[in-house]
Amino acid sequence: MNKMAVNYEEIHDYLIELALEAGAVLTANTGTSAYDDKANAVDLVTAIDASVESLIKSKLRAKYPAFDFIGEESEKHALSDLPTFIIDPIDGTTNFIHAFPFSCISLGLAVNRKSVVGVVHNPHLNTTYSAIVNNGAYLNSTTRLPLTPATPLSLSSALIGIEWGTDRDGTNFKIKTDTFKSLASKQGAMVHGFRSLGSAAQNLCAVASGSLDAYWEGGCYAWDVCAGWIILQEAGGRMVDGNPGNWKPDLEERTYLAVRPGADSEKFITDFWSHIPGKMFYQS
Amino acid sequence: MNKMAVNYEEIHDYLIELALEAGAVLTANTGTSAYDDKANAVDLVTAIDASVESLIKSKLRAKYPAFDFIGEESEKHALSDLPTFIIDPIDGTTNFIHAFPFSCISLGLAVNRKSVVGVVHNPHLNTTYSAIVNNGAYLNSTTRLPLTPATPLSLSSALIGIEWGTDRDGTNFKIKTDTFKSLASKQGAMVHGFRSLGSAAQNLCAVASGSLDAYWEGGCYAWDVCAGWIILQEAGGRMVDGNPGNWKPDLEERTYLAVRPGADSEKFITDFWSHIPGKMFYQS
Repeated sequence: MNKMAVNYEEIHDYLIELALEAGAVLTANTGTSAYDDKANAVDLVTAIDASVESLIKSKLRAKYPAFDFIGEESEKHALSDLPTFIIDPIDGTTNFIHAFPFSCISLGLAVNRKSVVGVVHNPHLNTTYSAIVNNGAYLNSTTRLPLTPATPLSLSSALIGIEWGTDRDGTNFKIKTDTFKSLASKQGAMVHGFRSLGSAAQNLCAVASGSLDAYWEGGCYAWDVCAGWIILQEAGGRMVDGNPGNWKPDLEERTYLAVRPGADSEKFITDFWSHIPGKMFYQS
Repeated sequence: MNKMAVNYEEIHDYLIELALEAGAVLTANTGTSAYDDKANAVDLVTAIDASVESLIKSKLRAKYPAFDFIGEESEKHALSDLPTFIIDPIDGTTNFIHAFPFSCISLGLAVNRKSVVGVVHNPHLNTTYSAIVNNGAYLNSTTRLPLTPATPLSLSSALIGIEWGTDRDGTNFKIKTDTFKSLASKQGAMVHGFRSLGSAAQNLCAVASGSLDAYWEGGCYAWDVCAGWIILQEAGGRMVDGNPGNWKPDLEERTYLAVRPGADSEKFITDFWSHIPGKMFYQS
């Protein structure tokens, strides 16, 4: 199957339909206290994660039987060149458990290992961000992203999305906290501020919207970023590696730096990278 | 004038009216790039802050001429026992400038130095949190807070609001980052996670709602917390000092720990305090 055989617009519309259906399950169940510890005491999963993934997977498999499928809860295999749905049934499971209104459904399609269609739906705030490659990115299908003027970027005036994740010791955590301190401090970049929403997909949409200048991450997976990546790209933003020096990260890179649309992004990125004292490492 | 002469319900309704009026100004102007540095390069104020405060102040002075008024932009004097409106025209000015949708209007009334009426309106998300002492706390005047079941508190399962502020060197910043690391790390409390919304008032409303278990802060002022404090209290949550040991902080304490409703809050608070290695100090 080649790329031309895939109708991106049809897929986009169907992913939105699925996301809205799943959204109703999230709003009905957020704030549940039933959860399991996955990798450790703070890497959480609920029965709802699994059932929402199962719902979406069965529908996508039925409608697109030749496509591959990668999902956080049931299908964690490596990405190939095949058209592949890459989905996270609940991005921000900790938010979901605590009823912090930033859990969302993140549904992406990758072709030749690149994100080409993305839908990120937050049913609590009623926001749906979506994009098709070469067709722009939209909020609620009508408002073009970014939402703000794409003024020039500069690190000292940046509002930065940062997350602390569940891996809270060793070298990776030390690099995160040291980078944070260097970006924050008066002796360092003294950026405008930091925000943490607890959802990679929502952070990427905030960068695509222009309300965050950047989002820096280590530890995410392809299902956390696939949908948001094309939304960011179609808004005019760019995705580079969260580790210094790599301008072309893979979907499965696991370390990312997302930057909003605006002039001087190369300087912004090299300035940002200069505050990272080392290299994060995550098994791919 | 004694407390009995004050009609809290009338004031509550009028503060909501003013907040909605001011909200339209915020939505029309968020994302503006015009701002001044107040204390340093990241303590920001816009012309909109001053004009919204002026609007609210003139209306409150006209309707309640015997009341005192404290506002972030024009009236920073110390609090007395008089009925005093304590307001922040834009809480989350950095959010406002960046169009990150968590700037809000925070309008409180204190009597005998205690918060008795509070309104926190976020015009971007269309949420209005409000409370009158002894009358409960509400979202959009209809939904009683908290929004989630008030299950028992425990530090290891907590989602914590934390902010980094604009004061990014010296002892206070070191205590913040050391406390964060102790709460975060596998060797420490290993809490569920951290969120940063960039608005004290919105964080307090999130704690009152139950979507954050706690919010820890150093460096805020009375206008950042007055409205949110009574909303938290009427939701069944509690406010103690952000420095260990003080169970009864003043409105002007500048260091705060807000905890959601739920059993075992005393243990939660003493556990939380045990991770703070020192005492933050802010001029009152």
